[in-house]
Amino acid sequence: MRSFFKVKRPEDIIESLKDIKPLGTEPVHITGALTRILARDIISSEDLPGFQRCTVDGYALAAKDTFGAGENLPTPFTIVGEVRMGEIPNFGLGRGECAQISTGNMLPEGADAVVMIEYSQMVEDAVVEISRPVSPLENVVQPDDDVKTGQVVLHKGTPVRPQDLGILAGLGIGHVDVFTKPRAAIISTGEEIVDIGEKTKAGQIRDINSYTLGGLCVESGAEPIYLGITRDRFEDLKTLTEKAISQADVVLLSGGSSVGAKDFTLDAFLSIAEVEIVAHGVSISPGKPTVIARKGNKTLWGLPGHPVSAMIIFDVFIRYLFGRLSGVSSPPEYDGHAIEAELDRNIESASGREDYIRVKLTRSEGRWLATPILGKSGLISTMVEADGIIRIDINTEGLYRGEKVKVRLFYK
Amino acid sequence: MRSFFKVKRPEDIIESLKDIKPLGTEPVHITGALTRILARDIISSEDLPGFQRCTVDGYALAAKDTFGAGENLPTPFTIVGEVRMGEIPNFGLGRGECAQISTGNMLPEGADAVVMIEYSQMVEDAVVEISRPVSPLENVVQPDDDVKTGQVVLHKGTPVRPQDLGILAGLGIGHVDVFTKPRAAIISTGEEIVDIGEKTKAGQIRDINSYTLGGLCVESGAEPIYLGITRDRFEDLKTLTEKAISQADVVLLSGGSSVGAKDFTLDAFLSIAEVEIVAHGVSISPGKPTVIARKGNKTLWGLPGHPVSAMIIFDVFIRYLFGRLSGVSSPPEYDGHAIEAELDRNIESASGREDYIRVKLTRSEGRWLATPILGKSGLISTMVEADGIIRIDINTEGLYRGEKVKVRLFYK
Repeated sequence: MRSFFKVKRPEDIIESLKDIKPLGTEPVHITGALTRILARDIISSEDLPGFQRCTVDGYALAAKDTFGAGENLPTPFTIVGEVRMGEIPNFGLGRGECAQISTGNMLPEGADAVVMIEYSQMVEDAVVEISRPVSPLENVVQPDDDVKTGQVVLHKGTPVRPQDLGILAGLGIGHVDVFTKPRAAIISTGEEIVDIGEKTKAGQIRDINSYTLGGLCVESGAEPIYLGITRDRFEDLKTLTEKAISQADVVLLSGGSSVGAKDFTLDAFLSIAEVEIVAHGVSISPGKPTVIARKGNKTLWGLPGHPVSAMIIFDVFIRYLFGRLSGVSSPPEYDGHAIEAELDRNIESASGREDYIRVKLTRSEGRWLATPILGKSGLISTMVEADGIIRIDINTEGLYRGEKVKVRLFYK
Repeated sequence: MRSFFKVKRPEDIIESLKDIKPLGTEPVHITGALTRILARDIISSEDLPGFQRCTVDGYALAAKDTFGAGENLPTPFTIVGEVRMGEIPNFGLGRGECAQISTGNMLPEGADAVVMIEYSQMVEDAVVEISRPVSPLENVVQPDDDVKTGQVVLHKGTPVRPQDLGILAGLGIGHVDVFTKPRAAIISTGEEIVDIGEKTKAGQIRDINSYTLGGLCVESGAEPIYLGITRDRFEDLKTLTEKAISQADVVLLSGGSSVGAKDFTLDAFLSIAEVEIVAHGVSISPGKPTVIARKGNKTLWGLPGHPVSAMIIFDVFIRYLFGRLSGVSSPPEYDGHAIEAELDRNIESASGREDYIRVKLTRSEGRWLATPILGKSGLISTMVEADGIIRIDINTEGLYRGEKVKVRLFYK
């Protein structure tokens, strides 16, 4: 059954996730739609603003009537009305006529421009002198200037931003279809692991991974389901994995990093019907002892017990996976949120694996300096101290002090 | 009463917000603490992991006993026991003795290092040959390697990240005190504004600002309270502003961009007891017609009706304000989330005001090109099309094609 031992390269793991399909869709009100991923293109069924709209306070008139107007020779206009807020003007303009108008209002028939109040002077009750010519459409928004009927205003597969809420509201679209959030079942295993509320005895440590992984899920738009801690025994792992896969799209089982325990994880995954093993080991450091399995569109991850290793595997693969499950048209690139920095000491790296190095950033003379944080991958404090991560390519044997590196920043 | 007209410079507005105090604090469980701002330093009351912990699978022993061990001359050790997961070893090691041990377990008395299983060979039932020497503490984490008792592990005023949840969990801290989220009451005004669900008549437009501002609040960690639309009349504005300030820390009243309406906003703000006007106009474009008032630690914002202008004012000032109210130790810098790009055409800018230019980014030959998006500030579609914003300094009169600019990116 498990007579194979597939250590895979990181790029092969990403490749194997490329056919993961987006989940279902659900309608949400726009007040709850921020950061959700649109499940359809949004096509406007109307023009916005839908009428000729004035953008300043002043006088609506026909631009051609202002030809020749100047400070020394202002042109008089007869005020024949005032446009009321939010109403259709019930009058039109003839030659040499104008109407008082405020920002946001509809131009009356016969007007194609607005002169700002600053360039006018009342001379009689109903006569105003204009001291500056305007061009046609000056200080006016055309009925379809903002959005045209039939225009694709927002695209399927993109996250909703504040301004996108604005355009939806402007078009009267109160609900949008978005992709369902991926659900991730989180399990910690290990005989020595106890829950956060428990008092530890010597030899025991509290569950760290459930909470870092849960936080990473929330940060990447997924919904964590905390299934707690289980012992490193085949039957226990099998039962909880079955429960997990029935409830979630992704199973994140971390721990059991000893050789025997990892075999139980593999066996537990293999005991699930129609499961296939994608990788048993990944050429990445830290994070090598990772088991990845797949059952249709669902994936099971046997993550390392060391907190740093589990976080790195999440960052490199599972963030991408959630992008695919959420229907993001271009799932996040690993170094999408990076800055350039200068390495302040040499780093060794073995060829044949990707190395991920925690670094602290400091600002010095207008540039960023990246200082590697040494420390075992079991020490969560090294991630707390770090500002980001450097990736060293699978074919690179170390980096020199002074080299430019890309630091993937932690989101804050 | 309002015989002043204070147009303020952007830096003066920021200065005036520097004495805004953080709100109260509340305890949250760590599963809900991501991105919240810590209200106290977190000080560890214990060592982590709290015991000498093994980081590999292999044999625990005294490092000095392996001196001279090599592939050609392995050193034999007597296996005197196996460390059980999560338990305190009930035996110690004498000279030339070792114990089987797995990752995560506690070292027995007498051991100070672990040899990986790869460098061992069983020769008899209870005898193993070790083919490589180890140094003291090799493959071992010391009791306080991760965290020391009394150490400040997380700092007041910083946002909680996934790894921070991990260190809290590891220390058994299930609840943390965080600063209360600022509440922002959102009001749209304008005779021509109708709600999102309503059918518009010519001359009317739907409320856009409530939703863009609501989205910006959520994005910056504040809680929006949607108070709806009110008419541009003093009594209505006064009543709703009073309601708003009784419920919220910040009042965001947008619209009423005509001269008369702005006066009503100012009057409504002035009618609130103990209010003082901070600015009546800001030298910024777009966004100039902004009224800012203050009542103690609460602020009232009369934002422009044009959606782009209102968003810019939010981005430049209100994001910073929320940082202060949330107790962030270093509130977000305006260009904290920026990339460098090359301008692909000239931009004019008037001296004496800060200009904010929407730009679209494209990738070309390894660099980012920023293309300004022209279009009036009433057009929300220009913000939807944009990827970010360029700021042009108050003393700069335009930028040339080819110049390097900093583009503040929209969060996605």
